[in-house]
Amino acid sequence: LTVDLNCDMGESYGIYTLGNDEAILDHVSSANIACGYHAGNPAIMRKTVALALAKNVAIGAHPGLPDLVGFGRREMTITHQEAFDMVVYQVGALNGFVKAAGGKLHHVKPHGALYNMAALSAGLSEAIAEAVYKVCPEAVLYGLAGSALTKAGKNVGLRTANEVFADRTYQQDGTLTSRRLPNALITDQNEAVKQVIRMVKEGKVLSQQGTEFTIQADTVCIHGDGPHALAFARFIRQTLENESIVVQPIKS
Amino acid sequence: LTVDLNCDMGESYGIYTLGNDEAILDHVSSANIACGYHAGNPAIMRKTVALALAKNVAIGAHPGLPDLVGFGRREMTITHQEAFDMVVYQVGALNGFVKAAGGKLHHVKPHGALYNMAALSAGLSEAIAEAVYKVCPEAVLYGLAGSALTKAGKNVGLRTANEVFADRTYQQDGTLTSRRLPNALITDQNEAVKQVIRMVKEGKVLSQQGTEFTIQADTVCIHGDGPHALAFARFIRQTLENESIVVQPIKS
Amino acid sequence: LTVDLNCDMGESYGIYTLGNDEAILDHVSSANIACGYHAGNPAIMRKTVALALAKNVAIGAHPGLPDLVGFGRREMTITHQEAFDMVVYQVGALNGFVKAAGGKLHHVKPHGALYNMAALSAGLSEAIAEAVYKVCPEAVLYGLAGSALTKAGKNVGLRTANEVFADRTYQQDGTLTSRRLPNALITDQNEAVKQVIRMVKEGKVLSQQGTEFTIQADTVCIHGDGPHALAFARFIRQTLENESIVVQPIKS
Amino acid sequence: LTVDLNCDMGESYGIYTLGNDEAILDHVSSANIACGYHAGNPAIMRKTVALALAKNVAIGAHPGLPDLVGFGRREMTITHQEAFDMVVYQVGALNGFVKAAGGKLHHVKPHGALYNMAALSAGLSEAIAEAVYKVCPEAVLYGLAGSALTKAGKNVGLRTANEVFADRTYQQDGTLTSRRLPNALITDQNEAVKQVIRMVKEGKVLSQQGTEFTIQADTVCIHGDGPHALAFARFIRQTLENESIVVQPIKS
Repeated sequence: LTVDLNCDMGESYGIYTLGNDEAILDHVSSANIACGYHAGNPAIMRKTVALALAKNVAIGAHPGLPDLVGFGRREMTITHQEAFDMVVYQVGALNGFVKAAGGKLHHVKPHGALYNMAALSAGLSEAIAEAVYKVCPEAVLYGLAGSALTKAGKNVGLRTANEVFADRTYQQDGTLTSRRLPNALITDQNEAVKQVIRMVKEGKVLSQQGTEFTIQADTVCIHGDGPHALAFARFIRQTLENESIVVQPIKS
Repeated sequence: LTVDLNCDMGESYGIYTLGNDEAILDHVSSANIACGYHAGNPAIMRKTVALALAKNVAIGAHPGLPDLVGFGRREMTITHQEAFDMVVYQVGALNGFVKAAGGKLHHVKPHGALYNMAALSAGLSEAIAEAVYKVCPEAVLYGLAGSALTKAGKNVGLRTANEVFADRTYQQDGTLTSRRLPNALITDQNEAVKQVIRMVKEGKVLSQQGTEFTIQADTVCIHGDGPHALAFARFIRQTLENESIVVQPIKS
Repeated sequence: LTVDLNCDMGESYGIYTLGNDEAILDHVSSANIACGYHAGNPAIMRKTVALALAKNVAIGAHPGLPDLVGFGRREMTITHQEAFDMVVYQVGALNGFVKAAGGKLHHVKPHGALYNMAALSAGLSEAIAEAVYKVCPEAVLYGLAGSALTKAGKNVGLRTANEVFADRTYQQDGTLTSRRLPNALITDQNEAVKQVIRMVKEGKVLSQQGTEFTIQADTVCIHGDGPHALAFARFIRQTLENESIVVQPIKS
Repeated sequence: LTVDLNCDMGESYGIYTLGNDEAILDHVSSANIACGYHAGNPAIMRKTVALALAKNVAIGAHPGLPDLVGFGRREMTITHQEAFDMVVYQVGALNGFVKAAGGKLHHVKPHGALYNMAALSAGLSEAIAEAVYKVCPEAVLYGLAGSALTKAGKNVGLRTANEVFADRTYQQDGTLTSRRLPNALITDQNEAVKQVIRMVKEGKVLSQQGTEFTIQADTVCIHGDGPHALAFARFIRQTLENESIVVQPIKS
């Protein structure tokens, strides 16, 4: 049994520091690196790519909406064409740093509102998947497990990874509970890891409505900011390995 | 005898239109496409790449300083590392669109203040040249004829192109007359083309100080905005061909 | 009978020019000046304020969403607090130029998607109205005729102006036909002016669904860009005056 | 004997936090609040203004160069007109929040590279001073002690404050030692405070070249970020008061 452990990274900006990338990289198998739209700037991108390469962590692009002040978390009514364009731009830019460092782009995972909007929109997902395919056909597309995004990825010819969340709760329709609602986050670390292990081993998760549904867990998202992020990264990695689940990147 | 005719393109932004790219593309052999820092946005980049491909014009990246409101024309005291990073970012981003369209990135030409600063700084030029080489080693680096930038390009292992200007006057040290000075621009079209033909045929140009100096003219920059840009593009192309000078891209 | 004729202005940006402000200002009684978020930059704001003052046109702030590349036309899921904050910021900034020029801020009109979102949301409208009131309580708040925005303005203690559109068609619920739909625009100038005159004189307008509804026309929005903008401005002004309708700013 | 203790504040941005404003405000008498160009965004501006008002600290605008990624620390070749415009814009914007909160703008202090460039340029200083005077003639202009900026402020009719630095060393020409040089910073807290007390009491400071020069210390800049910022703020306030120096805002 294997699973990928991914974390958003490179979300600092200029003088501002967010997260604890260097330490977290010791515990994850893939890194989603911000591309300058919702976070990240060229210097941060270069440094984060170098860190991931040095620690042998698979490198992904993490394109977001053009909204630095809102950290890419505010939905915008973009057209499918605009989504295509902004993904090409950001994946291309990150790929520049990956090539400059002698690495290889492994995956793409949309960020924040773009990720959430794509999960629910076939058209938006097709645009994103097509953008990834045209810039980097060998990349793996990460999307919410069972969502429109992974479907669109498969349709366009990409390898895809169904992503699940350790510290987020689920609705009965398979979407994440909105951060605006209470109970969106699982704050108990044991509970969070238990949810993940069940998703990986049994392919099942319990929704907030009390119903259970089937979920495919190819990659698990953990968060890199917050005071407990590093401890949790260490804990989930250790616990997964104790359960004989091998943590490794998605095969591309 | 051959020469390349290049023009800055894709310098529109969102709702704003600058230049007459589609028509100009009929007359030039290479296009320098803005990458979103001084001008251009993803939609414009995609469209401009598609136009250039359709018209068989060689595609270049045109990275600039991060200064949209100043159109990349205001010098900034950036470090060499910052120059490296912003070139990697922008060349990577444009390359995304080139790959998505099934094309090939042919060259890189820094824009505005970045171009001018590089012409005079060996360190800055090395940083830029290294960035280009690491992202796209087969690209041609365009720089001011005889400047630090073309030297740095050669040193790092890139093919380079010495760029001359049709409508700009020269100082005796080989630099362009600053736009802040009178006589910076050659407004008479015949005079402008004569200057170019002499540079191409004889390798010589007359400076504002009355002295002549040697110059290598691999590529000629013409401007795409202004009311007479299109007529001038047609005129210089025609005149060069009448002089049996073949207009074609730099061999990469 | 009186009516105000307003036009969005100062929507150029850096090197980019949009509209024909100087000429249009001869025909309108109030100008809505972009504040740097969807368009405009400090130099443009200063110049536009000076032009409006010189031509004795009432000066308004035209705050928009922070989306230069989308010209403030893409909806964003901002909170009411974010709306409050971005209006305070932009109105304050424009007011800086108005004070520096020795003028007086006359009104505020939200732009594009912010205007449209406010028209339909009481909460958003309250936030905007409160922002205007707190920065400039004597300003007139312009909003879609009969919308949540003008209601919120009145509630908070502002003078308000019901805005109608010359060249846009209406839905039976009093909203403008979306620009994404056909028939959103009235391209025939006579038809456009007739719609306005009827709104001013009779307080009625015909919807796209064929029903008529009551509308209060305090101020008429005309557009400053497009090839026919200037001719139309001249035409509507002339026609209104021929109908003995006095064109003058809203009393503040 | 009195002196003002000022600190740059509101330099967080969106999700990013910088400094420890709330705690530092207990120890300073005036706050320079970022205006969105080098740092700060509308939400941060509003919150910082509210904090300063609540703690009875004098509120100033802290306009910078339009360079968020470089934190306004990179020099740009702006024209005097551009400097005027960007100061009007930013002071106006901050003033919006001050008015909305029922406060009064007390002073303006340029940030980073703009501050340093102004200190050495009479023309740039005149442009900045004129901008402040036209938007808010009752504001105090803070500038490097004895620099072109305070001179220009006086000439235009503003009250000015000569600013000295606790933790920076001086050159014999009265400028600050560049941060790029070693010994730019005074890291020993006792030494830093001693330098300040001598400047306040005797009007003298020792330069890095070993020569002493006369300096007028109306206001002392302390820094709000860094691990020791809060402790130092407490320490300098306490030590000044122990020396019978009253810490209070500049009279405006």
